[in-house]
Amino acid sequence: MIRHTVAFRLVHPAGSAEETGFLTSARELATIPGVERFEQLAQTSAKNDFAFGFSMEFADAAAYDAYNQHPVHVAFVRDRWVPEVADFLELDYVPLD
Amino acid sequence: MIRHTVAFRLVHPAGSAEETGFLTSARELATIPGVERFEQLAQTSAKNDFAFGFSMEFADAAAYDAYNQHPVHVAFVRDRWVPEVADFLELDYVPLD
Repeated sequence: MIRHTVAFRLVHPAGSAEETGFLTSARELATIPGVERFEQLAQTSAKNDFAFGFSMEFADAAAYDAYNQHPVHVAFVRDRWVPEVADFLELDYVPLD
Repeated sequence: MIRHTVAFRLVHPAGSAEETGFLTSARELATIPGVERFEQLAQTSAKNDFAFGFSMEFADAAAYDAYNQHPVHVAFVRDRWVPEVADFLELDYVPLD
């Protein structure tokens, strides 16, 4: 299992309609084949500047690669992520043991 | 639910006995009351410099606060985390919706 996560903040004001629009749009990522346990999260620690997180799991690297190349993901990155995300950090995790 | 996560890298060489010792020691954090779904993770994205992650969940802020103040956590931070962790980032998440 690979857990793909990204912490981010938007260019939009907190609580704005644009913020809601971005989050709503991102839900279509959950429909891409291979995406499991898709979560939209508020980032609440004061020790960093990120406001949100997404988390999703893939069975293996092939499923993760297919997601990255899927037209819905490619279009989302191009049309929403790049223009609307001010900063982000991707972290991918595989359970130890 | 609050998911407390930390991405980090150690001062020790990858695969060293010191690395294993640190990870084994950290498992005692899972025994602290209120800690749920404790995970030790390998960080696998090449887009950042962290090698590991821990993730745990708390029912609420009171449980999270109790963990932070628990003697086992305080001792772990003092005796293992501070001397053995080279860099880290804490991210805390609460599900949206």
